[in-house]
Amino acid sequence: MPKIVRFYEFGDADVLKLEDQPLVEPSEGEVRLKVEAIGLNRAEVGFRAGRYLELPKTFPSTLGYEASGVIDAIGFGVSGFQIGDRVSTIPAFSMLNYGMYGESAIAPASAVTHYPVTLSPTESTAIWMQYITAYGPLVEYGQVKAGDFVLITAASSSVGYSAIQIAKAAGAVAIATTRSNAKKQMLLDKGADHVIVTNDEDLVSRVMEITNGHGVDLVFDAVAGSFLETLAAAAAPGATIFVYGALDENAATPLPLFAALQKGLKIQGYTLFEITTNPIKLEHAKQYIYRGLESGKLVPILDRTFTLDQIVEAHRYMESNQQNGKITVTVP
Amino acid sequence: MPKIVRFYEFGDADVLKLEDQPLVEPSEGEVRLKVEAIGLNRAEVGFRAGRYLELPKTFPSTLGYEASGVIDAIGFGVSGFQIGDRVSTIPAFSMLNYGMYGESAIAPASAVTHYPVTLSPTESTAIWMQYITAYGPLVEYGQVKAGDFVLITAASSSVGYSAIQIAKAAGAVAIATTRSNAKKQMLLDKGADHVIVTNDEDLVSRVMEITNGHGVDLVFDAVAGSFLETLAAAAAPGATIFVYGALDENAATPLPLFAALQKGLKIQGYTLFEITTNPIKLEHAKQYIYRGLESGKLVPILDRTFTLDQIVEAHRYMESNQQNGKITVTVP
Repeated sequence: MPKIVRFYEFGDADVLKLEDQPLVEPSEGEVRLKVEAIGLNRAEVGFRAGRYLELPKTFPSTLGYEASGVIDAIGFGVSGFQIGDRVSTIPAFSMLNYGMYGESAIAPASAVTHYPVTLSPTESTAIWMQYITAYGPLVEYGQVKAGDFVLITAASSSVGYSAIQIAKAAGAVAIATTRSNAKKQMLLDKGADHVIVTNDEDLVSRVMEITNGHGVDLVFDAVAGSFLETLAAAAAPGATIFVYGALDENAATPLPLFAALQKGLKIQGYTLFEITTNPIKLEHAKQYIYRGLESGKLVPILDRTFTLDQIVEAHRYMESNQQNGKITVTVP
Repeated sequence: MPKIVRFYEFGDADVLKLEDQPLVEPSEGEVRLKVEAIGLNRAEVGFRAGRYLELPKTFPSTLGYEASGVIDAIGFGVSGFQIGDRVSTIPAFSMLNYGMYGESAIAPASAVTHYPVTLSPTESTAIWMQYITAYGPLVEYGQVKAGDFVLITAASSSVGYSAIQIAKAAGAVAIATTRSNAKKQMLLDKGADHVIVTNDEDLVSRVMEITNGHGVDLVFDAVAGSFLETLAAAAAPGATIFVYGALDENAATPLPLFAALQKGLKIQGYTLFEITTNPIKLEHAKQYIYRGLESGKLVPILDRTFTLDQIVEAHRYMESNQQNGKITVTVP
């Protein structure tokens, strides 16, 4: 029987239990993966803790958006896959219906894709969530172009590094923020043109210095909260601030109304589901990401790797905010 | 000597003083109007009260964005105008530099335009602020089209009626909000497809009923404040909420973050200066408005008319929120 991660209540990382569960057959339109690796995301931490866009209605609940593995069963009506194919999953489903944390996982075939053979199973769990999350705001909506100034907050996350790479691929100037000095050098090494250490430096004056008083054209923000006022002050007239997360989860987020009126700012909420649940947009995103991986402009940045029986430690590590890049789990 | 409205301190309407002032000659690029009528705007009330996007740096200060009149002097380097031309002014300047409240007014020639001969001087002060304010969000940015659901708050203002007319001209469904029952019938008579009386009705459930659960595609909001949460709840996925004012001036405006993330909402700050200070966008707006006036799809809705020596009463009337349409002032 495969081991599956489940939880019976919202809470800290240790609510996650690794349990033997019967092997499930895929239904129509689904495939089953013998999982080789799992990619961890903030979304799953929020889902487990009881603060996410959607929450389980019954317990125990499974969880997880990203796994890679080998297809070992195929449901009715699925085409394009064969038993033995190496694939990874795209977050194009609800965790109320599917969870990827386990030795075996059922996924809708529409959320499963072959990954480039140059990538390892672990690396292939560090593609879809991170690159599509950054692709939507920067490419699909923001149409980032050469010379644009792009401000990326909480830049040392897997999504943050992805945004840096996507901005750079377009010829834009990537300005990364991080709270402490600890991650500054790695951000510079991994492609950020400028790094602002927000605990030590004044963000607005640094941005104005870097942009010669222009401000930033696009903001890609994971933080929200009162920090949004600062981001609005650093924005150029007509800029768009994309908010894709709420790391500052304890604070209300005031709308920076005065700056928004005076500078005609757009503040746009975003989740990757806008892309992944739209077949045409998803196909564009996939082609963009395949090309980027092939050309070497997109390179997944891996942080620590845990094993499945360390899933509690892996979640704790994510919540400690020490990571630099993607946290993954290997499945023996 | 012409009488000019000036104020020496921020405060209630009675800080406005009507004073004899020397006749001023226009400088390069300017024209002088013998004023026939003045259009009143919330912007001037805010400017006088000390709460507006920009405030006078020295006193006494003049004020006013909209006047119509006859050109009686032309500065160096101005083409396209002759002495005796009937014109009205477009808010395409800062009130720190120019003020239209008075028997005579200097205006930059770029902010002056001929108005349709079918309009009276009074009506011609009820065109540019109101229609360009609604045109930017609905047409230039929002690209309103047939079948769209458009929610217009504080709809009984001159800008609100303009938004109703622009939405209807595009074939969209105009849903107007008003606080009390008093203005409901007039809003229906003047083109609103639906009117929601927010003191008596639940906005979200009424919107969902009207739109068959879809929500509104565009919101055109003058209020901001905590009402924005309600507007976000009434918005369709991917909707844009344009905020062009802050009538709820005492309250902070929380960003409706959860709804924004879940529905991919855009919240966009807007002032008409985005259009009026961009020559190409302004020309498009003018052509749109000229065509609309000519076809009868845009019809200025006039409320009470005061005389210049009643300017204090006129401001008090605007602040009383009794008006329905544009408040104007005639100048003898």
